[in-house]
Parts: sequence; structure tokens; C-alpha cells
Amino acid sequence: MPQLRIALAQVNPTVGDLDGNSALTVAWTRKAAEAGAHVVVFPEMSLTGYPVEDLSLRKTFAEASRKSLEILARRLDEAGCGDVLTYVGYLDLDEEGPRDAAAALYRGEVVARQFKHHLPNYGVFDEHRWYKPGTTLDVVRLHGLDIGMVICEDIWQEGGPISALGRAGVDLVVAPNASPYERAKDDVRVPLIARRAAEAGAPLVYTNQIGGQDDLVFDGDSLVVGADGTVLARAPQFVEHLLVTDLDLDAGGHVTDGALDGLHVRRRVLGEEPLPAYEPLTGSVVSEPLSDEAEVWSALVVGLRDYVHKNGFSSVVFGFSGGIDSAVVAALAADALGGDNVYGVSMPSRYSSDHSKGDAADLARRIGAHFRVEPIEDMVRVYVDQLKLTGLAEENVQARARGMLLMALSNLDGHLVLATGNKTELAVGYSTIYGDAVGAFAPIKDVFKTHVWHLARWRNAEAEKRGETPPIPPNSITKPPSAELRPDQLDTDSLPDYALLDDILDDYVEGDRGYADLLEAGFEPETIDRVVRMVDKAEFKRRQYPPGTKITFKAFGRDRRLPITNAWREGKA
Amino acid sequence: MPQLRIALAQVNPTVGDLDGNSALTVAWTRKAAEAGAHVVVFPEMSLTGYPVEDLSLRKTFAEASRKSLEILARRLDEAGCGDVLTYVGYLDLDEEGPRDAAAALYRGEVVARQFKHHLPNYGVFDEHRWYKPGTTLDVVRLHGLDIGMVICEDIWQEGGPISALGRAGVDLVVAPNASPYERAKDDVRVPLIARRAAEAGAPLVYTNQIGGQDDLVFDGDSLVVGADGTVLARAPQFVEHLLVTDLDLDAGGHVTDGALDGLHVRRRVLGEEPLPAYEPLTGSVVSEPLSDEAEVWSALVVGLRDYVHKNGFSSVVFGFSGGIDSAVVAALAADALGGDNVYGVSMPSRYSSDHSKGDAADLARRIGAHFRVEPIEDMVRVYVDQLKLTGLAEENVQARARGMLLMALSNLDGHLVLATGNKTELAVGYSTIYGDAVGAFAPIKDVFKTHVWHLARWRNAEAEKRGETPPIPPNSITKPPSAELRPDQLDTDSLPDYALLDDILDDYVEGDRGYADLLEAGFEPETIDRVVRMVDKAEFKRRQYPPGTKITFKAFGRDRRLPITNAWREGKA
Repeated sequence: MPQLRIALAQVNPTVGDLDGNSALTVAWTRKAAEAGAHVVVFPEMSLTGYPVEDLSLRKTFAEASRKSLEILARRLDEAGCGDVLTYVGYLDLDEEGPRDAAAALYRGEVVARQFKHHLPNYGVFDEHRWYKPGTTLDVVRLHGLDIGMVICEDIWQEGGPISALGRAGVDLVVAPNASPYERAKDDVRVPLIARRAAEAGAPLVYTNQIGGQDDLVFDGDSLVVGADGTVLARAPQFVEHLLVTDLDLDAGGHVTDGALDGLHVRRRVLGEEPLPAYEPLTGSVVSEPLSDEAEVWSALVVGLRDYVHKNGFSSVVFGFSGGIDSAVVAALAADALGGDNVYGVSMPSRYSSDHSKGDAADLARRIGAHFRVEPIEDMVRVYVDQLKLTGLAEENVQARARGMLLMALSNLDGHLVLATGNKTELAVGYSTIYGDAVGAFAPIKDVFKTHVWHLARWRNAEAEKRGETPPIPPNSITKPPSAELRPDQLDTDSLPDYALLDDILDDYVEGDRGYADLLEAGFEPETIDRVVRMVDKAEFKRRQYPPGTKITFKAFGRDRRLPITNAWREGKA
Repeated sequence: MPQLRIALAQVNPTVGDLDGNSALTVAWTRKAAEAGAHVVVFPEMSLTGYPVEDLSLRKTFAEASRKSLEILARRLDEAGCGDVLTYVGYLDLDEEGPRDAAAALYRGEVVARQFKHHLPNYGVFDEHRWYKPGTTLDVVRLHGLDIGMVICEDIWQEGGPISALGRAGVDLVVAPNASPYERAKDDVRVPLIARRAAEAGAPLVYTNQIGGQDDLVFDGDSLVVGADGTVLARAPQFVEHLLVTDLDLDAGGHVTDGALDGLHVRRRVLGEEPLPAYEPLTGSVVSEPLSDEAEVWSALVVGLRDYVHKNGFSSVVFGFSGGIDSAVVAALAADALGGDNVYGVSMPSRYSSDHSKGDAADLARRIGAHFRVEPIEDMVRVYVDQLKLTGLAEENVQARARGMLLMALSNLDGHLVLATGNKTELAVGYSTIYGDAVGAFAPIKDVFKTHVWHLARWRNAEAEKRGETPPIPPNSITKPPSAELRPDQLDTDSLPDYALLDDILDDYVEGDRGYADLLEAGFEPETIDRVVRMVDKAEFKRRQYPPGTKITFKAFGRDRRLPITNAWREGKA
């Protein structure tokens, strides 16, 4: 059977950086050429990064993307990679509108270009806003083999271009993707790709983007699946990687031009001669997927690292309170940027406990972070005295004095400020706007409180396994959580127990279940009522929160966009 | 020719408030009945308010909306309005998904329901995310007349349901709408509706929502247009209004059930007998549209008023700096809420000029606002001394001390905080995050600086015409703008002259023009470069800004959603 060596370039482009992403494409195609690959497949919109959001609608950007593609084709040829058939994603524009496009480059030329057919418009995707759908199937014949392509969502839809390619009789399908990470998504993705390969009757090469982009993170996990559904190659998650594998392909009949299932098949013949037989690579290229905890931790680390670096920062500053949230954020930041780029500030007030200050210092020692103590007593005193503050106003001033202090240090030293709030707090609005919500990025914004504890224990255990110092002070994990904004305050004064609260939130937010469902699940009516009202009222606060890495199906922000002015109360009607 | 009395209920529903909006529908239908109307038309999704955003996807909400519709039909009958054919908008849900729906209610029953066909997915609309399109045309025969309906966007698209209704031969078309305000939109809307009425070959009854919803404001401007394109009736803008008019209709042939242009025509006969001849109402019901300035001012007043009231507040607090922005916001707030609900705070620092303090006090006197002076010197001093702040860090601390002070007063007294920044500042990022960006609402967020001055002069002139005290201190209009965060600072130290800056921003932001276009328009390359870089870098700041009433085509936020992490620089490629 005809052979072909395929490379999957699982890269981390930067949104909007056409020059940088072009250079990245040349560098990785050269690596693929050096590895003897005949075809290399980059992710969806690899030249622009994904998602570019409303930048898609900007004509000058689309034109620059088109121009970059032509230049890239020539550059690849000049770099000696012209004979490697290179699939890249880019933004196209024609008289109908912008297009999510992929092109095949060969010997200095664009030899095929196809537009995405299915435009997802749910969850984090707004592609009906950005793109017009394509109607062609562009097939390239190389070394006597017909190679078809589909883009991302095209493989998530029943029927459509994959089954058309199957009927057209292609020998291989390449699928550039930018599929955002979500917990346990691979449990869905791998069987789906296997099914599509079977429908296409040909191996499927699925290259996914890696890296962080605002609130999204891409895990890679690129795959090659045989026509029988077998996983032939699999890249590691959350790292840039060149996955190279040899395929023995069934050269079927030749694909012909023409209409098929309402799609227009356009083919381009580059070469009819099969490759002379060669010695295939040996050894397994099937990486093991990460455990659930390692996957989430990696997502949070990569999301944080890329947000900081891609925005031109190298260091972060935030409050070390001694509590579990800031401890986990610190451990993530140290893993992402190195402890030397983490600046912790303990900002004790009159209500701060001794153990808080001690745990904060302990945290800094464990992860090798910079650490300083800046009491907020004097700032708070001026406000309380001048404005005669009491109660909530006095509590909030403490949180805001801290936010202001961190922003001042950021202005002085150029660190990016992190907000340390978790998803549970965000859900119920248990945070102070312009206080603990201050920051350019919120690493654990999409992690429920009970999950924060779980990750802390897991990360410490991993360190112990490796003979390293566990990064998180055990005391921060075990003590009862408190905002310490008034004497002897505990989170449980204002909120149900976190295990119960997260259970309800999981049903109400992630599961989109209603009042009646929650009752049926056995929760107390008063507790449901209390939680649901808190969640429904907190939309303004949530919108003011900085972005943070999405790891669930229903992350606040992109996935769930409620009106602020909203009189609806679940259970009321 | 058969007569029919039509009422357009141009109402202000509250998003999510099914009970309140039902009560509103009953009250206004009763008014229509008292006015002798045979048909009353409410706006699009009048029962839920528009837009409900991702609340559309919540099954419990959609089910509550469906249930409310059935109850409403019975309530109208019980209220003695059963014989008025009542068109209301609501959210429906079936096995395919949620629907933007309108229903006709008659004698306690839902006699017709139709789903919106064209789902806009651009600008402020994300309807492909929220709804599935409809495929039916539901025609009701009342008093021997065939009445068809279309929903909002259906009239903005060429062809589609309107021309199908024309071919079906209906005698009247009703069009429930929720069409957000935008400057000079009526210049487009009125001729469009006239054209559609001609296509339908029947008069068109266009009822639009009024009122504010987060960043959107609806202007009403409901219309009845004859089949020949004549405007027969027109409601005033930005107020709730019942527009009642008599029509002489051409009773054409009878509409029949069946397929038409891919749509399924379903009809329901309520009565074949034409009405006995009656004496029509006399007098013109064609309101004059507002001037451009009055229109914008009303939009800003209504947007602010509804945001405050619908979120459960009655009063506002913000900084009175003596400058033009806070003066215009104060005048708007006084017009929206009454001066007695406006709390101005002068927060002088060591760099505040005497005229600033004087102008702030003058403003409060002019509009009858509460006024207090709270120096920030002591707060700033603690930060500057403890953290050794200089330069930008010192400037920002002043703005943040003010934001924190306003939030403390809000916490103490329950006022809603307003942010007073304008669109020019927002565009170029000339504001302090967590400083002057603090607030729950930003009334002039979508007004360019030169436009702020223009509105100030216009509002003062209007007051003079009416023999009232001009609300805005003339000195606030004429003095050169300054942030007063360091000695002798002027805005022009950091920014081009506002007239030039707004010119470029209008081209770059509103017009979506590129670097080459700007060069061609005659701007200096250095100035273009400087402005474009400022705009492209400010996305994070813009996202942190509170919502504010949209009055332009490209308001920041909804209309223009760029990635934060974004290496694209216009003109670079």
C-alpha cells in the first residue's frame, strides 16, 4: 500500500500576530521536513491564532491575513520546505464575507483553499457572527493519493463534508482544529474522531491548537486515527509538539471534480507517482492522556502563563492571604512562570489572624516567591474615620484598600495583578467589586471551591511523589475559610457549607437545572432559594471580574451571558 | 371599504419580569379596549422584555414564558378585553429549541403563534445563539379581514415573509419589534417600512419597544404605514404611548392554508362579518420626530433612568469634578431622576484647581443636587508615603482613592455609582481602571468628547429657551479639559486635540477604516499611528468599564468584541 509520512504541528500561535505566526509555521515545517514528512498539518486559523473574535470583521486584518498566506507559501519554498504539502489555517475574505479558511501550500503556491462549512454558534463560539460558510471540498492529489480536508466543527456535525469526502473516495482526511479544552472533553472527542474516520473511509489527521487565549485554553491532544477507528498516533497535551507518523494508505479510485451532496468538489493534482517504498519510523507515538487532575492543573498553568506572556508581562503580583485560594493561585503561578516571577503581598488588617500571616509567609518560602508585608490599617483608618464607615461599607473598604495597593505596586514595578477568586464565590457574588475582584487575570475563576481544595491536595501529593516540597501550606488546606473582614468571620456565616453549595451550583449552573429539579434532587427549599437568588443577582459582579481560564462547560462570561437588569427569579413563576 | 381600529401599545417591559409584563399587557389592552380598538399590537417579546440574552436558553424560563402566555390570554378575557385581538411577543420552546415568538390572543385563547424567521446575528444581536427560525405564516381572519404577522428582523431582510404575505393576499400586517435606538436610525427605518408595506400590498403596523435595558435603549417611534407607503400614524419617541388609529382596508381574496415560498401558511378564522360602519377618529396621530440632539439626549436620559430604576435603585452618586463630563452626566441624571436623587461629591486633591471646586458647587446648585466635599488628600498621602509612589502610580492612586470613596458612600447610603467617562477616553484608554472607571453605569460611555460639549451647549440653550436655569456651568464647557492628577496637567499633554482625535476615532472605530484610508483622509502618519495604537491596546480597560447607553453603530462592548490578548497592530502588516 502507498506510504505517506504525516506531521502534525501542534503549535501555540498568538492571536493577531501574523508575522510571528508565519515565522512559527516556517520553523515547524522545517522540523517536519527534517523528519522526512511529506505532509504537515497546522491547527485551524494557525496564521491568525484562534479565536480572533470581531477582528474577523476588520477588512484590513482579513486582507493582511490573505497576503500573509501568499508570502508564507513563498517563504516555505525558500526555506527548502516547498515539497512538504503544508496545511495552514487563516482568515479569508471574499465578496460574501469573512471565512474561517484552511489552505494547502506546495512549492511556493497556494494549491487549495477551503472554507469551514459548519459554523458553531453556541457556548464560546460566535461563528455566525464572524464567518460565512463554505461550499467546496478541495482535494489535493499528492504521490498518487487524494487528500481531503475539513475544519474543526465540520467533524462535530453528523453528515456534512466528512460523509461527502467518504463518498468522493479520498485516501486521507486532514482536519485543522482549534478546539478549546474542557474537563473530560477527550472522552467525547476521541470516539467522535474515530467514527468520522470510519465515515470518511480513510485515516483522519486531527491537529489541535495548544495554548491560552484570554479565557480559553487549548489542549492539543492531536490525533491520527485509522479508517477502522484505531488511534495510530496521539500528541501529548498542553505542549507544543511535532507528531510524526507513517501511514500505509489505501489508494482508492481517483476523486473527480463536480457536485456532491450540495458541495462542489475541486481537485488539484500535484503528483501521480506513489512514493518509492521506504523504511517507516518505529516506536509508539501514542501519548497517554493526563489524569483528570493533571489535565486541569496543566490547563490552568498554560492559561495563566500565556495570558501573562502574550500580554507582554513576565511577573505577577497578588495578595497572599494565607487562605486556600491565593495559595493555589501562587502554586499555579510558580509552575507557570517560576517562583522568582511571583510577588506575594501580605496585607494584614486589624482582623487578620496570626495564622494567616504565618501561612502567607510559609507559602512564599515553599514556592520561592518574593514576599512583602504591607499592612492596610492606615489606609482603612482614613476612610473609616473620614466617612464614618460601619458594617458592609467598612468590610468592603478593607478589600478595596488591598486592590488599590496591588494596583499601585503593579504601576510601580510592572507586574500583572492576579485576582484569586474561585468559581463558587463568583457564582454567588461573594466578593468585593474593586476589591478582591481587582486584577488582569483570575486563574481559578472557573474552579469551584471544593475543587480548589482537591487540586491543592493533589498538587502537594504530586510534589511528595517527586521528593519536592509541597507548594501549598497544609494549614491553608485544612483551616476553615474566612474573609477576615470582621472579628471571627467565617465564610459559613454568609454561605451554606461549600460541599452543599457546590453541589447545588453544579446542578443549577453547569446542569442548567431548575428549581423543581433541585427540589427533586433532595435539597432544602430554603437553601435552593437562597443560593439561586444569590446567583441570579450577581451578574454585574461577574461581568466586572477579569477573564480566567475556562475548564468547565458553563464558565461564567463566555458561556453564560445573562442580562444585568433582569427581574427573572428562578422558581418564582 | 372595511374599517378597523388599531392600537399600538408602545410599552416599556422589564426583562425577565413575566408577572409585571403580563400586568402591563392587561393594563394597556384595557386602555386599547376603552379607545374602541379591535386589534392591539405589543412589541417583540413584550412578555419577557428584549433582549433576554442567554436566559433564552434556560428551559425553566422558556416554560414559564409559555405558561404566562396562556394565563395572559385568560386574564385579558376576564378583564373584559377578550374581543380585542391582542398581539404579544414571548419566548417559546419546542423540540427544536427556543423561539422568538409572537402570538395572537382572542377571547381567552391563543389563536395564532408564529416564530421569527430571520435571526439577526450581527452588532448587538446574537439570535443564532438563542433561537431557531420559524417556518410558518399565521394568518388570523377577523371581521372579514386577513391579518398576517412578521417579527422585527423579518422586515429588514429582502424577500422572506413579507413578500410571501403579499402573495398570500393579507389585508393587514402587524410587526412586533424590539429595534434598539441608534443615531439617525429613523432615516433608514421609515423608508424601509414603507417599502415593506408596498411589498405586502397592505398597511403595516410596526410597534417598537421603548426603554432601557443594560446598554441598549429602545426609542419606540412606532408607525402605521399604508400600502402606498404613506405614514398614517406615528408615536412619539422614548415614552410609553398608546397610538390609536382607524384604517380603511382593502378586503382582498381570502388567504388559504398551504405552502408558500417554503413557508407554511396556517390560518384561523375568528369572524367573517365586516364591522358595521362607524365614525372614525379625527385629528392627526403623526408625531414629529425629535431633533438629533433631543433624540440623543432622550436616549441617554431614558437609558440611565431605566438602568437605575429597573435595578432597584432610586438615586445616584458620582464625582463632581468641575469638568464637562461629570457636568453633562449630572444634567442627564437630574433629567432622569430629579435633582433630589443626585448626590455629587467633590473630591479635591492637592492638584485640584479652585475653579474645579467652584464649578462643581455651581453645578450642584444649578440642578438642585445634594453636594458634599470630601478631600482625598489623607487617603492618597498614606499610599504615597507607605509605598513610595511616584509618577503614574501616584496619579492613579488619586483616581482610585476617589473610586473607593464613591463605593463606600454607595455602600453606606444605597446610591448607585455612575462613571462619567466618555467614548473618546474609552477608545484610547485615557482612564484609570478601578479609578474613574468605577461605577455600575456609564451614561456617556458612547458619546465622543466633542459630542459631549455639543450636547452641553444644546441642553443649556434649551433651558434658556424655556426660561429655566441652564444646568451646566458655562465655565465647565469653555475651560480646557484636565484630569488634574499632577500640576498644570492638560488632556492635550497625552492626547491630540479632541476635534482631531474624534475625527480619527470616527473613521477608525465607527467607520472601521484602516491605516491606508486614514492616510488618504489626510491625517498625519504619526498621529494615526499614535491613536490607532492607543485604541488597539485599550481593550482590557474597555471591558472593565460598566455598561452605558449605546447611541452609535459601533458602541464599545456589544458591537465590537476584540480579544484582549491581541498582537495585531493596524498598519503594521
